[in-house]
Amino acid sequence: METVSENRAFGGVQGVYRHASETTHCAMTFAVYLPPAAQQGRVPCLWYLSGLTCTHENAMLKSGAQQWAARHGMAVVFPDTSPRGDGVADDEAYDLGQGAGFYVDATQAPWAPHFRMFSYVSCELQALVAARFPIDVERQGITGHSMGGHGALTLAMRFPDLYRSVSAFAPIAHPTASDWGRKQLTAYLGKDETAWRGHDATLMVKEGLWKRDILVDQGASDQFLDLLWPESLSGAIAESRTAGVFRMQPGYDHSYWFVSSFMEDHVRWHAERL
Amino acid sequence: METVSENRAFGGVQGVYRHASETTHCAMTFAVYLPPAAQQGRVPCLWYLSGLTCTHENAMLKSGAQQWAARHGMAVVFPDTSPRGDGVADDEAYDLGQGAGFYVDATQAPWAPHFRMFSYVSCELQALVAARFPIDVERQGITGHSMGGHGALTLAMRFPDLYRSVSAFAPIAHPTASDWGRKQLTAYLGKDETAWRGHDATLMVKEGLWKRDILVDQGASDQFLDLLWPESLSGAIAESRTAGVFRMQPGYDHSYWFVSSFMEDHVRWHAERL
Repeated sequence: METVSENRAFGGVQGVYRHASETTHCAMTFAVYLPPAAQQGRVPCLWYLSGLTCTHENAMLKSGAQQWAARHGMAVVFPDTSPRGDGVADDEAYDLGQGAGFYVDATQAPWAPHFRMFSYVSCELQALVAARFPIDVERQGITGHSMGGHGALTLAMRFPDLYRSVSAFAPIAHPTASDWGRKQLTAYLGKDETAWRGHDATLMVKEGLWKRDILVDQGASDQFLDLLWPESLSGAIAESRTAGVFRMQPGYDHSYWFVSSFMEDHVRWHAERL
Repeated sequence: METVSENRAFGGVQGVYRHASETTHCAMTFAVYLPPAAQQGRVPCLWYLSGLTCTHENAMLKSGAQQWAARHGMAVVFPDTSPRGDGVADDEAYDLGQGAGFYVDATQAPWAPHFRMFSYVSCELQALVAARFPIDVERQGITGHSMGGHGALTLAMRFPDLYRSVSAFAPIAHPTASDWGRKQLTAYLGKDETAWRGHDATLMVKEGLWKRDILVDQGASDQFLDLLWPESLSGAIAESRTAGVFRMQPGYDHSYWFVSSFMEDHVRWHAERL
């Protein structure tokens, strides 16, 4: 693991690191924020998964998570959103290929050799972070924005013992029904839709797979409402009697201004549960 | 004035605007954050001047000022750092020409026709913002980072009735003695150093030109300490018996992580004085 940069921030350290991944078979870059409390011992850890076109950097620079993480004594990990590099398959569209891993393990050509973000985040990077940084592996939560909100919800429901708390900002809430989903799940997982079911938050919530509570924020003026399908997730939460808070936020769009405006609430949500 | 973008943020609006400047004779872009309180009436206004290589965007995205401005009911204006465009003089160096206006009115060729950021910020953009946004012109303060900290301190001392409060992050504190200053002041104002004196915070503080108090934060691990000369400004504050708080912050460098880590304190400083 190589240290790309480390900066003092809010009394802690914002670092960027690079390593050769055995899961995605390419170099992967990620960021970790360690709060001041990490100088005294192990701290809880929040995973932040980013959206389409993002790298580790967007949320690191724009979400404002560090200041709240510092106050609550929590680490934050910002993974990249896909494998990258000249030898990695890609597509001209912004929503497929590099920058658009969708947090699945691809089984189809040409994606299968590298596009394994599901295992990368939940397994390889998980182990690397736990080994190299002073986090308490028993106290980890997960959140994310847009495609990353989809990733956070679906990973939490697949690994509820690993991720003890979950929230999401404007998640892609029902990818098996959306143009943000059907195209990518077909490309990465193939046409058999039974393989998709483990990657759709609405379907998984309906099955009652999350036994604790969920926080979801959604901008009511989001320009991508037709692709996100928030109504299907809010309906599934109610229908399955899952505990949770689903907030439609008037006037907010899909940008990081929306994310940063409510980041304080999300970090507190996780801190209170970890 | 053209609206480039507007996003809901922390209950208010983060806008980016463009206009044809009569001072710099080119199109100028700037950003304004209006807090929720601006929907009810005029609010105090903080000017944030940015450093070398920056546009209006760096601090807008990375300083985290908006959340504190929202809480304190204060507008924030983020001007650009120089004139820009194909017809505007430039230099290959990052610290001269476009992106490096140094908040002076150039008198020398080839800079004089466009490089008039002193008048642009304090006069033309001041009037435009006051006319188009609900700010209270009697309650304005100014801050900035690096070259923008130099700009904030020197503009405040030149216009103490306009800027009622002042602070700075890692300012270029003594440009007449520094390689961040002598080169630029020579280029923009000529070799006669008497023309430079009104653009050096250390010299102006020594003359007792600021009658209220000053807040300055400086990272103790700043990679540019030899160019910033913080010791000359802290010495001038003490020598002139100027009220103020000068904080050396251990471990912090020159990046926006440093700025954002202490932005809350600076916004509160201005809010308490406006």
